[in-house]
Amino acid sequence: MPEPEWLTDDEQRAWRGLLQMTARLGNRLNRDLQQTSSLSMADYDVLVQLSETPGGRLRVFEVAEYLQWEQSRLSHHLARMQRRGLVVREECTTDRRGAYAVLTDAGREAIEKAAPAHAATVRRTVFAGLSPDQVAALEAITTEVLSRLDPPF
Amino acid sequence: MPEPEWLTDDEQRAWRGLLQMTARLGNRLNRDLQQTSSLSMADYDVLVQLSETPGGRLRVFEVAEYLQWEQSRLSHHLARMQRRGLVVREECTTDRRGAYAVLTDAGREAIEKAAPAHAATVRRTVFAGLSPDQVAALEAITTEVLSRLDPPF
Repeated sequence: MPEPEWLTDDEQRAWRGLLQMTARLGNRLNRDLQQTSSLSMADYDVLVQLSETPGGRLRVFEVAEYLQWEQSRLSHHLARMQRRGLVVREECTTDRRGAYAVLTDAGREAIEKAAPAHAATVRRTVFAGLSPDQVAALEAITTEVLSRLDPPF
Repeated sequence: MPEPEWLTDDEQRAWRGLLQMTARLGNRLNRDLQQTSSLSMADYDVLVQLSETPGGRLRVFEVAEYLQWEQSRLSHHLARMQRRGLVVREECTTDRRGAYAVLTDAGREAIEKAAPAHAATVRRTVFAGLSPDQVAALEAITTEVLSRLDPPF
């Protein structure tokens, strides 16, 4: 085994910062969303995906891929959202790519109601403190890292 | 209600990139870790915290705060790790700040064995593609955002 290549001190600080930011930001966004709407962050993430597609519908496996959730976790979550009237699951027996998740009118209304306060939290916690150069750097960094991970589909 | 302040297109791209990067990177790191060690990412995160403190011990609530986990999730996870011999829980009846999580020799060995391959994955997926300026930008961004969230303790 060759000597392991550890992160440099600069990389280590950036890495720890990224891990802490991700954890703290996720909790803050979830908490604020639940205080200002009837949705959890998980609900919101599902509804965003559906609301941006024509007809508000996506294959369940595509939603799972995008959110990077296990199929079983997503199926359980969609079942709970269906009981709350936010989505419906449409089975598809003629196409082996399987079922669709479809946004309902109530689901669209819920995300449209939740979105302004959520966007305000994202702006206040993330973008209000960043310069345009930092926003551009953040996009470039995420694009580079994503290119090194598996493609989404 | 004032008109909501949506993100600009640039901010939106950076934000979506950050969400996608976080989700995909978390899955990749977890998968690679499980292929090269006996640990999950959750195990690893707990062991890192403990391994960096004198005596390998921290209050359970401090670990929860750092990882941003609910106390109940952490308690269940620590119980499973204790059954695997990686940590022990030391009750503390005289101090109301409560129990400690303590690293065992087997826990220290497990993280020392897992760390080189994990660091190599982080380097390959994140830092190998970033310039020193981008690493500095990432640290500055995370520092700024963290300053806008609650302090860790």
